[in-house]
Amino acid sequence: MSGASFFGDMLQTITERGRQLLALAPFGGDAPRPSLEQLCERLLGGNGEASGMALASLILERWRSLDGPEQAAFMTMLLERFGADESRLDAAIDAHRAKPSADTVRALHAAAEPRRQEIIRRLNLAPEGVGQLVRMREALLRMLPERPELAAVDADFAHLFGSWFNRGFLVLKPVDWATPANVLEKIIRYEAVHEIKDWDELRRRVQPVDRRCFAFFHPRLPDEPLIFVEVALTTSIAATISDVLDEDRAQIRAEDATTAVFYSISNCQEGLRGVSFGNFLIKQVVADLRRDLPKLSTFVTLSPMPGFAAWLARQRAAERPDLLDPAERAQLAPLDDPAWDRNPDAVEELQPALCRAAATYLLRARNPAGLAADPVARFHLGNGARLERINFLGDRSPRGLRQAHGMMVNYLYDLSDIEKNHEAFIGRGEVIASPAVQRLAPTTRASQPRSVRPEHAA
Amino acid sequence: MSGASFFGDMLQTITERGRQLLALAPFGGDAPRPSLEQLCERLLGGNGEASGMALASLILERWRSLDGPEQAAFMTMLLERFGADESRLDAAIDAHRAKPSADTVRALHAAAEPRRQEIIRRLNLAPEGVGQLVRMREALLRMLPERPELAAVDADFAHLFGSWFNRGFLVLKPVDWATPANVLEKIIRYEAVHEIKDWDELRRRVQPVDRRCFAFFHPRLPDEPLIFVEVALTTSIAATISDVLDEDRAQIRAEDATTAVFYSISNCQEGLRGVSFGNFLIKQVVADLRRDLPKLSTFVTLSPMPGFAAWLARQRAAERPDLLDPAERAQLAPLDDPAWDRNPDAVEELQPALCRAAATYLLRARNPAGLAADPVARFHLGNGARLERINFLGDRSPRGLRQAHGMMVNYLYDLSDIEKNHEAFIGRGEVIASPAVQRLAPTTRASQPRSVRPEHAA
Amino acid sequence: MSGASFFGDMLQTITERGRQLLALAPFGGDAPRPSLEQLCERLLGGNGEASGMALASLILERWRSLDGPEQAAFMTMLLERFGADESRLDAAIDAHRAKPSADTVRALHAAAEPRRQEIIRRLNLAPEGVGQLVRMREALLRMLPERPELAAVDADFAHLFGSWFNRGFLVLKPVDWATPANVLEKIIRYEAVHEIKDWDELRRRVQPVDRRCFAFFHPRLPDEPLIFVEVALTTSIAATISDVLDEDRAQIRAEDATTAVFYSISNCQEGLRGVSFGNFLIKQVVADLRRDLPKLSTFVTLSPMPGFAAWLARQRAAERPDLLDPAERAQLAPLDDPAWDRNPDAVEELQPALCRAAATYLLRARNPAGLAADPVARFHLGNGARLERINFLGDRSPRGLRQAHGMMVNYLYDLSDIEKNHEAFIGRGEVIASPAVQRLAPTTRASQPRSVRPEHAA
Amino acid sequence: MSGASFFGDMLQTITERGRQLLALAPFGGDAPRPSLEQLCERLLGGNGEASGMALASLILERWRSLDGPEQAAFMTMLLERFGADESRLDAAIDAHRAKPSADTVRALHAAAEPRRQEIIRRLNLAPEGVGQLVRMREALLRMLPERPELAAVDADFAHLFGSWFNRGFLVLKPVDWATPANVLEKIIRYEAVHEIKDWDELRRRVQPVDRRCFAFFHPRLPDEPLIFVEVALTTSIAATISDVLDEDRAQIRAEDATTAVFYSISNCQEGLRGVSFGNFLIKQVVADLRRDLPKLSTFVTLSPMPGFAAWLARQRAAERPDLLDPAERAQLAPLDDPAWDRNPDAVEELQPALCRAAATYLLRARNPAGLAADPVARFHLGNGARLERINFLGDRSPRGLRQAHGMMVNYLYDLSDIEKNHEAFIGRGEVIASPAVQRLAPTTRASQPRSVRPEHAA
Repeated sequence: MSGASFFGDMLQTITERGRQLLALAPFGGDAPRPSLEQLCERLLGGNGEASGMALASLILERWRSLDGPEQAAFMTMLLERFGADESRLDAAIDAHRAKPSADTVRALHAAAEPRRQEIIRRLNLAPEGVGQLVRMREALLRMLPERPELAAVDADFAHLFGSWFNRGFLVLKPVDWATPANVLEKIIRYEAVHEIKDWDELRRRVQPVDRRCFAFFHPRLPDEPLIFVEVALTTSIAATISDVLDEDRAQIRAEDATTAVFYSISNCQEGLRGVSFGNFLIKQVVADLRRDLPKLSTFVTLSPMPGFAAWLARQRAAERPDLLDPAERAQLAPLDDPAWDRNPDAVEELQPALCRAAATYLLRARNPAGLAADPVARFHLGNGARLERINFLGDRSPRGLRQAHGMMVNYLYDLSDIEKNHEAFIGRGEVIASPAVQRLAPTTRASQPRSVRPEHAA
Repeated sequence: MSGASFFGDMLQTITERGRQLLALAPFGGDAPRPSLEQLCERLLGGNGEASGMALASLILERWRSLDGPEQAAFMTMLLERFGADESRLDAAIDAHRAKPSADTVRALHAAAEPRRQEIIRRLNLAPEGVGQLVRMREALLRMLPERPELAAVDADFAHLFGSWFNRGFLVLKPVDWATPANVLEKIIRYEAVHEIKDWDELRRRVQPVDRRCFAFFHPRLPDEPLIFVEVALTTSIAATISDVLDEDRAQIRAEDATTAVFYSISNCQEGLRGVSFGNFLIKQVVADLRRDLPKLSTFVTLSPMPGFAAWLARQRAAERPDLLDPAERAQLAPLDDPAWDRNPDAVEELQPALCRAAATYLLRARNPAGLAADPVARFHLGNGARLERINFLGDRSPRGLRQAHGMMVNYLYDLSDIEKNHEAFIGRGEVIASPAVQRLAPTTRASQPRSVRPEHAA
Repeated sequence: MSGASFFGDMLQTITERGRQLLALAPFGGDAPRPSLEQLCERLLGGNGEASGMALASLILERWRSLDGPEQAAFMTMLLERFGADESRLDAAIDAHRAKPSADTVRALHAAAEPRRQEIIRRLNLAPEGVGQLVRMREALLRMLPERPELAAVDADFAHLFGSWFNRGFLVLKPVDWATPANVLEKIIRYEAVHEIKDWDELRRRVQPVDRRCFAFFHPRLPDEPLIFVEVALTTSIAATISDVLDEDRAQIRAEDATTAVFYSISNCQEGLRGVSFGNFLIKQVVADLRRDLPKLSTFVTLSPMPGFAAWLARQRAAERPDLLDPAERAQLAPLDDPAWDRNPDAVEELQPALCRAAATYLLRARNPAGLAADPVARFHLGNGARLERINFLGDRSPRGLRQAHGMMVNYLYDLSDIEKNHEAFIGRGEVIASPAVQRLAPTTRASQPRSVRPEHAA
Repeated sequence: MSGASFFGDMLQTITERGRQLLALAPFGGDAPRPSLEQLCERLLGGNGEASGMALASLILERWRSLDGPEQAAFMTMLLERFGADESRLDAAIDAHRAKPSADTVRALHAAAEPRRQEIIRRLNLAPEGVGQLVRMREALLRMLPERPELAAVDADFAHLFGSWFNRGFLVLKPVDWATPANVLEKIIRYEAVHEIKDWDELRRRVQPVDRRCFAFFHPRLPDEPLIFVEVALTTSIAATISDVLDEDRAQIRAEDATTAVFYSISNCQEGLRGVSFGNFLIKQVVADLRRDLPKLSTFVTLSPMPGFAAWLARQRAAERPDLLDPAERAQLAPLDDPAWDRNPDAVEELQPALCRAAATYLLRARNPAGLAADPVARFHLGNGARLERINFLGDRSPRGLRQAHGMMVNYLYDLSDIEKNHEAFIGRGEVIASPAVQRLAPTTRASQPRSVRPEHAA
């Protein structure tokens, strides 16, 4: 509160003066109100330095009052009017071609930087600028499908955010029942994997001594978790999500836990899409838990397989499926009953077939780029985890059944193998899996993936 | 401490594993120790992602153990081996020339970015990476005079620091007698204008209710002030530094103060040279003080004139000085007595002449770029302050006498005029001064400066 | 968490050693388990000092495992075995009677102190001892109706708590949406005046800029509010609770508020009954709000009249009511319809009569001790507030209708009159009321109260 | 600062109103200024409740302006005017004698409580009251030698402080180089055992990783350490203070330490004399260090023997010393040379004799009460430590030579024996010592001490 009123005060002071001189007065006054483009030019101009904060605040204030089409027009203006200076760029290219050197490269790099990058940096001068810029990109991302040309503007945001939200600037904090409510409500809102219905359920996830939650924060966005992970401390590897979330489960003492189950990882800020935190988060939480609870020896996820059902549907529908033989296909027929999971016979019949199909999917299915087809698998395998176990009916929720016929996966993080697994996956395309999983899908590999980097977590 | 041990733990965990695989083991082992260049390549490589923090820590650890020539060699390696990829850059230029578009510019910009920028970003992954990178640039800046070609490397550090230390990420904090000692000792060490001899003197500057000190901090460098300003709360505009620093001065209640005198501004981090904070610091402190002490109405500096004595010596030595007429030159003769300030006759004689000369220097002397010759004047005038008063024998310290024959200056920050003054100075080269100062040097302007931006504070 | 594990560790260390020596081992071992009485003796004994913390923890641990009758037996033991040492007391009386002096009084005072007071002090040595002692007294208070003899033990708790929870040791903190959830859930739980149904309603009371909440905390009970007050910032004196709590009310800017309405004050710790905080809380919140929002000029409550309906029922039922004349009695007849508040005719008819009756009740009804009959009135008038306004149908909730036929009261805190009003009420029994309220019940005072102190807030 | 201005504001608000009504206006006004006695009566009176904080502040403000004799007069007034109410006390005695019960004891206890105890509690209402009360008792303690009758007043302060500064309310904090300067300067000031000359020496004691310092704080006195202990982490039991304090000593990594040497314990608040903290401090620091550094296995002091030289002088001067035989006396003759410690022959000759004498002193010398003669020995033995080793020339400072001929002692805290040792010392008067120390003074015990509690730490 004090901080807010402070900034308010300063803004009142500085902005009003700046507005008077610059004829920015929002109401009244003879001078025509300057356009956003003019304001952006002033923000960039050496001339405006004394009122940089005032200008930045004013532009952001105006931005917030725009409707959707106007915001898109603002972005188009950034694209068209605040790209690189073409004549300067041409000159830099000529100079470089004439006699290349570190200096000509530097000049070229500077000349090729779109002017809007500096606009974004200067908008950050405004109080709470960084949070507003994240929300601005959120809006921009929503425009992209309709206006793909704005990808160039998005690239500038992404570039700066990658630098600003570098892991070196982030802070890991435990989230528990003593965490401020305005942070906790965001945990409720952003939980993307296993919905949190209300405050009571939230409390069951963060208050018990055998439940933990950790989030990364940026120091200038103290109320905004960037990504968080929920952890269950247990004495064995959880096979189903209800083992973890059941209200009536038996609670254990944290000191008695041997296993940490990471059962949910959620990104919070759509505006930071493409800035990867998950890798660092998991590893830092592993290190943190090991230090506090030396008896913990197993670190494992309980993860969804979001692409499994769609892939399996395609295999079953294909005339000549590459990864499903006719016998397997036949065994999967009970899936056509939408209520199969409540039919004991169907369940019994499907168990071996679904487990085999899931193993095949994870070990051999590839996306067009030649990568593991499942995005969650790509994330954890790329981090160096091992595909440890496939769990039949691990998630009986409607979403779990719809997306993956209820299957869940454990990925194991063994710090002694992380680097080796990572190299194998990224360098040679191998999916490192436990013997049990390998036995489920013993045939020769159908396709060999190429070296790649994982794209996104889930 | 807890943070440190946490990171230590994590590093132990992750680094050791990473080292084993990567054959980085510092002692023993059969594999040859990889070179720093190899480590940097691995840090950049997609392959090393799982061990990015370990690699970054290892590189920084090695860097700290290098001697001066080895550090210079490291920088030269960054220059020569981690510039832009030339063939990629050539291709990007060709593509742009063939059919220019926002996309070809973006590709060009990316291709022209030296690879060492990404190395610097990834080194920031290491615990306390940002502080070590600042110190790394400090070392680099010391190399530059001997190795001007490293300016290209320095430009990359400067570019990233400008973005990371954007004012939007900084926090203003009061520095007082309840501030941690490890911060206060840095105030002692970094005070660049009026030396702080010991802890007792420090206490006199930060503890009394009519003395204030404020600093900017970066959230990830909580023990390192970036820049600080010392303020005296008074009932009139201080004319001499001893008015401010005298041990026996009469203390007043903060609520009774009408005037805030900014008598010292010091940058703390040589490694952040060129990242400008001073402008924002002064304005935010003005806003802060106004809020807390509504009776404060005058905000003024008590500043040195570091270039005055040298300029005056040149004028006096010149055959045909451009800004000193023969009568004035004659009046300044007593300056040749090095102890003139203790000779009442000399003092009386010199007062009018030195005041006139000082006014001339501030109003009309220009540096080769056509700017105000005095760097402190450039800073405050560029911020929109007004040259308010010239103070004879304001600083009788040896340094004050040597640099400026004891003269000091008050610059006035009047928020209603800041923008106008700034425009006048930057846009039209006018030095805005009080009538009293203008009267001291009434002749027509000798030279017209061009529009410029101030370079550095003092 | 760190604190907890630290204490746990220390306890493990110290308690285990202590237990071994003292043969306190909870499981196994040959020695018979010492009784709680023996443990208390040891706690008092000089002999046990080295293990004071261990003993205190052990006693509290045992206490928590007792069932109700056992806890009552423990209290009876404190009463019977740990009173004053009678022979020592007799000797002290004799010495005092022989030759009274400051020293004999001191000896008498010491001898008359029940030994259980020192037990309570030493139980406070245990980690989190103070919180457990508060809960211990809570249990004791529940026993009192059945075991009035334990009042002597309760007096010892009350005496020490009065000293420990002295206002000088308390900290006022704002409670808002950035307050930790474990504190906020206590606000929900302890709200005694206008129930908070869920987290959404809580948020409406603490998050909007024109709603405030403040609580007193003891530094050693950081998660436990002791008492809290809810405040609405408005532009006029609220007359009904729905003005304040309505979900769809128009929100105002805090800076525009002229009036602070204290609409709910709740004590949180039954175990601290009799330790009065409310007086200090209101005055400190008034001071705090005045400082932050200088435009606030009116500080007023919106209070219930919890005893009104019962009093009025007695008056209406009495053969010869002292404060209700027959005409008034007749006008109140529509009250017999339990749904009168939804009947416009009844409402119109009752308004003047109920307002007159309420004014009579507040101005003239006395309890047996000669004090204002209404406990809330006693609290605010005793604090120096003025009875400002009576609000017809200010609270249409079932409880409001049941307790006070929906009437509410505004008490005004005018700092310039607080002391005068307080003196008038406490010293001379006068109820200071606004002219408007006085006009409602103009007859001569029926009874003159005697000087008193208010007992409890509401 | 914010807190201060807040309280200032509130006081301004409340105090001024209170003063007006109570005719307390410090300047001007017709009413005569009330005496401190009148103010104290009002503070006690139910009548003054609304202005309790104002009155308390006013009394404390007046107190601060009193000179020494006036302060003594104030204390005498508390003694004479604010003792117990004698007629009430007499009545309570009569009632008790007539029919004793828990209730008559309770009434007696209440009646025997001097009214000044309630005054002290109410003075605590003032902002920063508790700190001022501690300083008030400091002044009172200085008066006692001249005015022994004030001991009764002192007893009231001591009684309340014992309750308020109960260990359960205190917080242990590490003191290091990141501690606020206003706390650190108090460490410099209060260090009572081995003087800290300046900030550089302070830094050497708190900044290195193998040096630690811990202090107890009261939450309402955050800038005032109550007691602190300095610890050296080492790999062996330090025998001399220069081992610990030498500027050029080799620093070790904290993780490599096996031994924690407590080389200085200092009480900070003379006003809290008699409230014992040292026992708890040492044990909590032991627990804290064990948790952070599991390799630590030995916890030992390096302590002075402040009474040794005086005791030895008496023995040597006595005609028939009880604990010094003629042969020993002869061997001690070189002590008569004041510079013996710089004479190698004298040093060699004295070493065995002084070690024997020191062991005799510690094991057998008794004070008049039959306790160990040395106050530091009494403290540590009473805490359950063992007398581990006697160190010849452990402290060559002038004070060390003067007080103890340079001898120092190690007391060992072994948590498994603490309770047993404590019992032996307190219960049976045995000094538990290592075999090595016992061998130094093998004769039969000269005197048998009685059970006692230690009085004060050193």
